[in-house]
Amino acid sequence: MNTIGSELRLTLFGASHGPCVGAVLDGVPPGMAIDIGRVQNEVDLRRPSPGIGTPRAEVDKVEVVSGVMEGRSTGAPITLMVVNRDTDSSKYERFKNVPRPGHADLTARSKYSECTDLRGGGQFSGRMTVALVAAGAIAKMLLEERGVRVSAYTRQIGKVVDEEERSASEAVLSRSNEVRAATPELADRMRQEILDASKDGDSVGGVVECIVDGLPMGLGEPFFDTVEGELAKMMFSVPGVKGVEFGSGFRAASMRGSQHNDPFVLVDGKVRTAKNDAGGILGGITNGMPVVFRVAIKPTASIAKGQRSLDLESGQQTELKIEGRHDPCIAPRAVPAVEAGAALILADLIIRGGVID
Amino acid sequence: MNTIGSELRLTLFGASHGPCVGAVLDGVPPGMAIDIGRVQNEVDLRRPSPGIGTPRAEVDKVEVVSGVMEGRSTGAPITLMVVNRDTDSSKYERFKNVPRPGHADLTARSKYSECTDLRGGGQFSGRMTVALVAAGAIAKMLLEERGVRVSAYTRQIGKVVDEEERSASEAVLSRSNEVRAATPELADRMRQEILDASKDGDSVGGVVECIVDGLPMGLGEPFFDTVEGELAKMMFSVPGVKGVEFGSGFRAASMRGSQHNDPFVLVDGKVRTAKNDAGGILGGITNGMPVVFRVAIKPTASIAKGQRSLDLESGQQTELKIEGRHDPCIAPRAVPAVEAGAALILADLIIRGGVID
Amino acid sequence: MNTIGSELRLTLFGASHGPCVGAVLDGVPPGMAIDIGRVQNEVDLRRPSPGIGTPRAEVDKVEVVSGVMEGRSTGAPITLMVVNRDTDSSKYERFKNVPRPGHADLTARSKYSECTDLRGGGQFSGRMTVALVAAGAIAKMLLEERGVRVSAYTRQIGKVVDEEERSASEAVLSRSNEVRAATPELADRMRQEILDASKDGDSVGGVVECIVDGLPMGLGEPFFDTVEGELAKMMFSVPGVKGVEFGSGFRAASMRGSQHNDPFVLVDGKVRTAKNDAGGILGGITNGMPVVFRVAIKPTASIAKGQRSLDLESGQQTELKIEGRHDPCIAPRAVPAVEAGAALILADLIIRGGVID
Amino acid sequence: MNTIGSELRLTLFGASHGPCVGAVLDGVPPGMAIDIGRVQNEVDLRRPSPGIGTPRAEVDKVEVVSGVMEGRSTGAPITLMVVNRDTDSSKYERFKNVPRPGHADLTARSKYSECTDLRGGGQFSGRMTVALVAAGAIAKMLLEERGVRVSAYTRQIGKVVDEEERSASEAVLSRSNEVRAATPELADRMRQEILDASKDGDSVGGVVECIVDGLPMGLGEPFFDTVEGELAKMMFSVPGVKGVEFGSGFRAASMRGSQHNDPFVLVDGKVRTAKNDAGGILGGITNGMPVVFRVAIKPTASIAKGQRSLDLESGQQTELKIEGRHDPCIAPRAVPAVEAGAALILADLIIRGGVID
Repeated sequence: MNTIGSELRLTLFGASHGPCVGAVLDGVPPGMAIDIGRVQNEVDLRRPSPGIGTPRAEVDKVEVVSGVMEGRSTGAPITLMVVNRDTDSSKYERFKNVPRPGHADLTARSKYSECTDLRGGGQFSGRMTVALVAAGAIAKMLLEERGVRVSAYTRQIGKVVDEEERSASEAVLSRSNEVRAATPELADRMRQEILDASKDGDSVGGVVECIVDGLPMGLGEPFFDTVEGELAKMMFSVPGVKGVEFGSGFRAASMRGSQHNDPFVLVDGKVRTAKNDAGGILGGITNGMPVVFRVAIKPTASIAKGQRSLDLESGQQTELKIEGRHDPCIAPRAVPAVEAGAALILADLIIRGGVID
Repeated sequence: MNTIGSELRLTLFGASHGPCVGAVLDGVPPGMAIDIGRVQNEVDLRRPSPGIGTPRAEVDKVEVVSGVMEGRSTGAPITLMVVNRDTDSSKYERFKNVPRPGHADLTARSKYSECTDLRGGGQFSGRMTVALVAAGAIAKMLLEERGVRVSAYTRQIGKVVDEEERSASEAVLSRSNEVRAATPELADRMRQEILDASKDGDSVGGVVECIVDGLPMGLGEPFFDTVEGELAKMMFSVPGVKGVEFGSGFRAASMRGSQHNDPFVLVDGKVRTAKNDAGGILGGITNGMPVVFRVAIKPTASIAKGQRSLDLESGQQTELKIEGRHDPCIAPRAVPAVEAGAALILADLIIRGGVID
Repeated sequence: MNTIGSELRLTLFGASHGPCVGAVLDGVPPGMAIDIGRVQNEVDLRRPSPGIGTPRAEVDKVEVVSGVMEGRSTGAPITLMVVNRDTDSSKYERFKNVPRPGHADLTARSKYSECTDLRGGGQFSGRMTVALVAAGAIAKMLLEERGVRVSAYTRQIGKVVDEEERSASEAVLSRSNEVRAATPELADRMRQEILDASKDGDSVGGVVECIVDGLPMGLGEPFFDTVEGELAKMMFSVPGVKGVEFGSGFRAASMRGSQHNDPFVLVDGKVRTAKNDAGGILGGITNGMPVVFRVAIKPTASIAKGQRSLDLESGQQTELKIEGRHDPCIAPRAVPAVEAGAALILADLIIRGGVID
Repeated sequence: MNTIGSELRLTLFGASHGPCVGAVLDGVPPGMAIDIGRVQNEVDLRRPSPGIGTPRAEVDKVEVVSGVMEGRSTGAPITLMVVNRDTDSSKYERFKNVPRPGHADLTARSKYSECTDLRGGGQFSGRMTVALVAAGAIAKMLLEERGVRVSAYTRQIGKVVDEEERSASEAVLSRSNEVRAATPELADRMRQEILDASKDGDSVGGVVECIVDGLPMGLGEPFFDTVEGELAKMMFSVPGVKGVEFGSGFRAASMRGSQHNDPFVLVDGKVRTAKNDAGGILGGITNGMPVVFRVAIKPTASIAKGQRSLDLESGQQTELKIEGRHDPCIAPRAVPAVEAGAALILADLIIRGGVID
């Protein structure tokens, strides 16, 4: 379904080539200052960059149609809408019969009948994340009022891997380059990796890391509603995500306990850990250290290169070349979506935990 | 909270050193044959093995206290209980003031006050998975009636990695060895890896892979209730899990789209893909191929070796040696928990999808 | 919160004097014909009637902004919006300090801070039911495809009580008169009752009865998600509702079991009951007879007559005369809202019960 | 389903003639003193009284099997169990083919197949309220710590109606007589009404009123999760309930607005209303006055008198005499169930509202 969250509850609607995409965000504490310019800024960060992004030229202007009065939340659901303008659906008719490898064409048709909207990926499109990012901007405001900062950056594009341990402050710096790398030098190399793939009519995958600092100890509602579980569920909604790991993640498999356990230490009178292989979470509950997680993103499924597919009517193998407008790498544009998703989940856990009344 | 699922809903209760652990499973279709011997077998697979497991000697006898009459489900919630017998709580008093690194002692105390039950890990203990495995056995029966088989095995222990692509049938063979490896040769090497860690008073991590075959196309309820998201949320409830990935997983980050996309082909008149980097899921919906995912498990937090911690009362650094009874590696015992969690989620998605009425 | 339903899920947004009111309806089966003219007709039935209704002159034009393509549902959430045009908020400023008796002014302010939107009743306004009725029209289409008809009518206005037992067909006839009475003669008397109250600067209450026929046996998910409980929860969301009763309702209190029990009989080869004091529900599950319930609606809280209230700043008693535009009786306009709410709940129970896949 | 509540979540299990009935209560704030004697007292109040109740002689001893350690809640789910001892299922076999009028025999069989457990009413039995009452006792403790008191009493049995407006304190006095009437004189008359019905081999209905005082202003989560809606949903789970009304209830239909609106007044510096036709709720949110509601309860369906039913196999009409052990009136025994249900819902709303952290 298209609703997530317990006490801060997000409902998404719309489709890539429908009239609009939008979000209803319910449970925002009343009286909060809602800076719509800030919402617009976050959405703008998600827009494609010249050269490495799709030429689809959406303006992505966010409108608030409910829940805000005189710049403040009223306590009623906040509804945000973005009109779709630059939709060119002519190319999508064919995919009903010849499903694009790596896309939801076939599964959507199987689940939702022939009436499913495949234009531009319909409700499976990365375009849904416009609404996610807009709603996430409001969650960020809520978190920032409480000293919590959510920052993501691109950790890997193809073979280019950022090997350093980064802080939230370094992650924020990624906002200054289009691939969202932590340093200008990495940005150059990642940009080249994308251009190389693009030149080959191909695409490339990546990894986004998200760091959340300023969280209080005690968030999370185990056994099932763990911080990891809630964040992971949200992340796997972001189109293209193949894996989610916290702290040491898959590296933990080859570690010894004596290496992995984070020793407790006292820092400025507060209990902290000397390192953070736990990723800020113990027993599904935040421990006061930064929450750190990484998200693996597959290479864009739409590529210009010819691919094998099947004509569903004739049952014949066929070659498919996808001509639409696509990003050769979606990882940089996933960065704001990862931040938004994390902000929404953590704000919900804060409200559920009774930290906000 | 301790409830998960929409139309097949699991509620866990109990604690490691309380009177019992148990599960209420609501939404089981009425009239289903419930083989309690089968439930017991699954629970037995979770028990520790001599040599590589904890010496805690629980019998783990499963009792059905509601929802089954004359060997069949009545449509009412099925309640399963396992009494705790071999509890030795004497050693846990100390951890209130000196939290064990890698454990929930500190976060539990922060969240649930000083009245939280830390004995044996309380509600954060791996022992909660006894109830998960028992309930999962019923979900497996439901799936098997529909031709769906859930099989997991140990893919990695420390430095020993199984590099082969495995089928569900190979995974099933892991039931014949105590580390749940796919082959006897790997089992020997993994066992040695565990014994080496144990000899050093240390522990070691691992990776479990789960393969589900026989699923129909069309399961999953995106945008948010994707197959990946629902499975991942469940997996992160299993104590010690640090990462979850589907199909290509984190490998996808360094791949090109032309490599990653799975071409559609016709097999016995059915649309399948020529390979399975998607892990059986496209757009959050099953595509008819096996669902394949991997779970990273950290090295057991409890180790005999001395560790640095903090005395919370005095604020002094202190050394902690944990003397309880612990597994040097929990990955093999996580295998049944991963299977059970997957079975519960997939059975819920089948019921939600209207495949069962 | 503003979301209700399990597998057919409604989210409302907007406010009486905000830019719009709207609804997101998630879970509509794909491929269903969506007759937007029909949606508009249902919304029009909710509009005030000359003479007995408010002079607020909203056009209430319904727009579909997602989930429908070429006249059919796509499987994605359907979003419906109605723009507010005729808003005159000038009179509401005063109620921040002098709460209107019978209104949510005080409780909204207490719960949502001073930033709550009290204009026209904000999110507590009967105007929210425009969106409910629009979404309900889609649920009705879903039900009608399965032979289920939801029909409500006005059973009582003030002292005028309809004493007959009515069928669904008689209830439908109420669409021909503005007070939604079952017969023209009752309509005249009820209209007069409303005009009498209006002439006195006062308002009057009423009762709406809803009859649903064509339901299959077996809907409802007890112990907690009973047909009665789900319907009642929805009904108490409709502004002004003070009571809900099924079948015999409060009359049951003075009855004997031998009178109340409905004998089972065979009608056209189907098991039915000889009468319907059960209101079509036994053990929280539909029994194949029409579901019948009644809803008590209080007299409109806004009246021209002077009333005692309190000036919250000075703490002084004061007299309040409410000059806005109001209906002297909301029962007739509640009829479409009751139908819509019932249709949404029953369609959800049908989907949950696996009757629709 | 068998789970209710958002942040205080109750799951019921068991059946009338199964091994036990029980409840899992999740979300109880940690560190709360749990007086198990008090839980037992509440359960004892639900037991049948000699003369006017069923001769089924259950001891109803409550056992706590999780969530409490050293007399305090640990933060983990609290599980309560009551073993069924005095079960005599021999008489229920017949009802598979000859459904009892007024019972769920037919609908349960239709929904849950022939494997449904009809013995003693199975999961539809009033016996499920043992577990509800036990869990409710814990919710009451939580409320009482915050000055909230939930008190119900019998307002009507058959033709005997209590016409006085009662306070919470008067309702508490009903604990001193077996029919739970507000005064000894009413108790005598109500008892006679029950005995008269019993003598005729018949049963009689009633009304229970519940009064909750001490609630803060601001509870309730409209639009849908209103105080009325949440309470009503719970009440309709209690077997035999046919109607729920708040404050003026169905009387409101014949009232004028000038009569019905409760004027705001200042009492001891707090904003209150001069009377309470609103039943303590405005716009779905508590207003600081006592929450008052009434529940209509049908006459017990099981009666000794002969009734018409149908033999489902032969399709023939038949006469049915029910010989089991039954209460001639369930209203008095519903009083503790109404209190428990109300306490659970209000405690959940308090936690959701952030009043408790």
